[in-house]
Order: sequence, then C-alpha cells, then structure tokens
Amino acid sequence: MEKISIKQAAKWLLDNDDFLILTHKRPDGDTVGSAGALVRALRKLGKRSFLYENSEITDKYMPFAQGFFAEEGFEQKKIISVDIASLSQFPLGGEKYRESVDLCIDHHMSNSGFAERICLYDTASCGEIVFDIIMELAGGMDKDTADCIYTAVSTDTGCFAYANTTANTFRVAGQAVELGADLPRLNKILFRTKTKRRADFDGYAYSNMRYYYDGRMGVNIITMDLRKEMGLTEDDLDDVASIPTGIEGVVAGITIKEQPDGCKISVRTVGDVNANNICAAFGGGGHRQAAGCFIEGSVNEAEEKLIEAVGKELR
Amino acid sequence: MEKISIKQAAKWLLDNDDFLILTHKRPDGDTVGSAGALVRALRKLGKRSFLYENSEITDKYMPFAQGFFAEEGFEQKKIISVDIASLSQFPLGGEKYRESVDLCIDHHMSNSGFAERICLYDTASCGEIVFDIIMELAGGMDKDTADCIYTAVSTDTGCFAYANTTANTFRVAGQAVELGADLPRLNKILFRTKTKRRADFDGYAYSNMRYYYDGRMGVNIITMDLRKEMGLTEDDLDDVASIPTGIEGVVAGITIKEQPDGCKISVRTVGDVNANNICAAFGGGGHRQAAGCFIEGSVNEAEEKLIEAVGKELR
Repeated sequence: MEKISIKQAAKWLLDNDDFLILTHKRPDGDTVGSAGALVRALRKLGKRSFLYENSEITDKYMPFAQGFFAEEGFEQKKIISVDIASLSQFPLGGEKYRESVDLCIDHHMSNSGFAERICLYDTASCGEIVFDIIMELAGGMDKDTADCIYTAVSTDTGCFAYANTTANTFRVAGQAVELGADLPRLNKILFRTKTKRRADFDGYAYSNMRYYYDGRMGVNIITMDLRKEMGLTEDDLDDVASIPTGIEGVVAGITIKEQPDGCKISVRTVGDVNANNICAAFGGGGHRQAAGCFIEGSVNEAEEKLIEAVGKELR
Repeated sequence: MEKISIKQAAKWLLDNDDFLILTHKRPDGDTVGSAGALVRALRKLGKRSFLYENSEITDKYMPFAQGFFAEEGFEQKKIISVDIASLSQFPLGGEKYRESVDLCIDHHMSNSGFAERICLYDTASCGEIVFDIIMELAGGMDKDTADCIYTAVSTDTGCFAYANTTANTFRVAGQAVELGADLPRLNKILFRTKTKRRADFDGYAYSNMRYYYDGRMGVNIITMDLRKEMGLTEDDLDDVASIPTGIEGVVAGITIKEQPDGCKISVRTVGDVNANNICAAFGGGGHRQAAGCFIEGSVNEAEEKLIEAVGKELR
C-alpha cells in the first residue's frame, strides 16, 4: 500500500479512466456525498465514472447518488473507495472488490490499508478530502457537486455541532456555499426534518424519561412492543442515545433497547463521568463519553443494574 | 448619521477610550457574544471598557458578559451599541442612552439610524462584523474572545442550519476555531442542552401534535394551564414555532399560544405555502415562510379558523 497526497490523488485520477466508486455498508451522508461529488467531478472532466449500486442507500441520501449507478455492460478499469476504513465495511454485494481497490480515499486513521494506494487525512469528514482533490483536479465544481460536498461535511459533524468539527470543516463548508451549495434546502432535508414516527417517539421519550440521582442520570427505555406499536425503523431511531444527555443536568444518559435475548445498552456521559467504566462492568466498552454493552434479562433488571453501576461512577 | 467601514470603525475605536457597550432588550447570543468579544478586545488594547449591565441576560449567555459590567463610578466617554436596530430595542434602563450612541455596530439593514455613526453590513450575525473589526484592530484575539465570536455567529444562524448562513459565516466560524474557540464545550451549552422543563414540553408537543390535510398541516396548542403546570418560561419556549414543520410532510406548521385575551398564532411554512397569506386573513403578517397573528376566542375556535385558512392556502 502506497500513501499518496491530495495532489498525487488528483494526478492519478487525471491519468486514468473508467472508474467504479464504492460507498460503505449502511451508507451515511459522508460516504454518499463524497462519492456523489467525485462521480460528478470526474464526469465533468470527460471520465467514464459510475457509483456501485449500494442497495442500502436511504431515501434521504438517494438524490445524491441516483442516476449515477453503474449501467449494464460498464467495465471498470479502476476502483475507488470513499469513507471505507476496513474490509468489513464493503457494501452488500461489493465484497468481491475487497482485493482490487486501486484508490482508497478515507479519513479514518485506523484504516486497515486494504487498497493499492490510499489518500488518508485526519479530517472530520471524508468529504473534506474529496473537496480538496476535486479543487486540485478541476479548480472548481458545479452547484450539484457542491451540494454533495456540503452533505458529506455537514452530516459527519452533526451540522458542525460535534466535537470533531475543525477550522478545515468550516473552510470546506464555506467554499461549498460559495460554489452554490443550497444550504437552506439541504439543512431542511438533512437536519430539520424528522419522520412522524420519530416525532411520536421523541414525544414518548421526553415524556417518559426516568431520572435518578437528582437528575444526574437519565434513562430511556425502548421496548420491542413500543418499536412495533410505533412502527419504528432503525433510521427512525438514529442518534437516540444522545437524547438523555441533551437534557440539562444529566451527566449519565442511558438508553436501554430491549432485544429478544436481553438488552442493548448505550451510555453517553458528560464531563468527568466515564461511560467506559460503566459499561466495562458488563463486559462492554467504548470511549470515555460514549460506550455500549449488553445485559441479559428484562429492561427493568437491566435498569436496576445500571442504576447501581452509574451510582458507583458518580461517587 | 455617518456610515463607516470596518477599517474606519477600528480606527475610531483606536482613537477613543472609556467605552460603554450596550446590548439589546431580551438579549440573545449574538448581542451578548458580540459585546463580550468587543469588551475583551478593547481591554487587551488597554482601553477602559465596560458592558452596560443588561438585567435580562439569561444564565446561558451570562458567562460571556459576567465580570465586565460597568463599575460604580465609571464614566464613559463613548457609547457603542451592538446588534441594536432601533430605539425600541434599547435594554431595560438603557433608554437614557438613546440619543447618545457614538458607534452603532449592526447587521439589520432596517437599522433606524439612531447613532452618530454606524458600521452596518448585511451579514447573518453582528458577530461577523465585530470579528472583522477586532482583527483589523488587533490582528488577532485570545481564546475567550474567540468563544464570544463563535457564540454570536453560531446562535444567530441556529448552528449554521438557518437560511441566513453564508460563506462569510463559515469563514468567521472557522477563524474563531483556529483562534481557540472551544467548539465541543460551546455547542453543548448553546445547542445540545435543553432544560428538563423543555424536555417535558417537547414530550407533550410531539405526543399531542394534531395533523390535518393528510399530515400537511400540523398544530401545536399551548394553553395557559399547560405553561403553568409545567412551569414553562419564555426561554423554555424558544423556537417552539419551528416544531411542526420539523416533521416530515408538514408544510403548514401552526403554534397556538393561549393568552388571557385570545390566542397568539405563529405560522411556519415550507415550499410554496405562504405563511403571510394565512396570517393576513386575521390582520397579521410577516414573511413568506414565517408569520404571526392574533385571534380572539378560545384555542379551539382559533384552531378551527386556522384549519379553514390553511385549507384555502393549500388548495
């Protein structure tokens, strides 16, 4: 594996043709936006370029990919992956390309190095790297391409609210806006709209939040019955783990998701409270402020055990 | 009234001393952040500078102002206002300065021209103008000042999600980060934390949203009893009007706030639906996507009238 710079990646793209671009499994805004921007920019340069038809792309991100999926009979000469960090993240049906990626563009410093060459930078989003490659390649981009870049950059940083946001993120977002990205429309689609099902769920979650230790611990319980009754999909439950710590005073936020064989637990913490410590007691782990574990038994049993574990950590 | 540029404003600040800085009535993040940044930058240059003690500054924004309020015996020579657009927006007790503002820094193009000189630009936030003035003045700023700028810029654009966000907003936010603004901490305080009361209210609102016209109209009713029962303050109800249109499919979002003498109505719309038309029928008005009016009678009577008015607009 060869590590290459943005300039080198741009030159390699100019020197080659007939590209197939891969997005990752359970695709998010960063992988689809990055791929959508790249395919558009390459076509504008007259390169035959297509996206691998990732069947898991959701309605929200489909507009950035639609119309660019590989056609019957297209034979790629070069394969590019965007935002894929390891072999386990190849898209469904795309496992056959695991050994043949020619260029990997990624921002996960943990990248396993599966590709022939890699353009890797420690940015908040893969879209920031793709943006710089396109600017190097073409000196500009059209409005639709800028929309894709903005989507990649903004979704991977929670609309610039997550801790991974840097000055570089703002630089790229600002340039995307200057190049025509339609912020009001995109922000409405990407951040300011929840499904009716999610609105119903939020209503339930906020009304039924359970508080302990003077409101320092907040618990949200999602039973299988509730999911069935409200018709909640995985998409609807995106980022629910962050609900409890979004409430003033809650420093240990627990989300208990009932499963057929026990409970999946997500822990989010604020300040000095260590989520990893709380989950380690149950054989789980993660980061200081975000961790997970699995607890056998009912939701009430799981809650009881967690109240005890959080109590120890709060002391 | 003389219109002056950023360069001229910086020069005027350098040429003078003993400043009193005014924030506006019902202060938001932009006015407090802008004032907090300016007072810090001026002091760093050795200028005696204080903030007018605006009694309405809430807990959320107090950290940016605390410690800088005018002391007993301070006699200002020059008065500066930030983010004040008209005489009616002077802070409580600060009406006495209406005729004596020497420099007005503002981003409302509707500014009534009450000051001796005005530094006015059509930016998303006043903080963007203050940032450029400070950079012109001092060539940099410390971390706390950058925190104030980030607060001003991010709050006035709903964390970069509102339609007023521009490339300039991102430029200033990015530079604030480079100068040390503590994004993770600030975003948590400014955007990712709601009071328990607001969490309770959101639970109520999402669980009790009323949908009409196949979910294209969403109605949220806030009675006086509910406010009393939940102990909701004005702060707790910040931006509630945007809740209904945040739900997929809702293109006419209505919030009905019961008052002793009738109902205060906020209308938000999406796409072609005109909020101004809906409110005009009741003697109110506003913009295409955000308008308001007052309807006499009970919340149920108001809702009935609004269902009819929205029906006409949806046709």
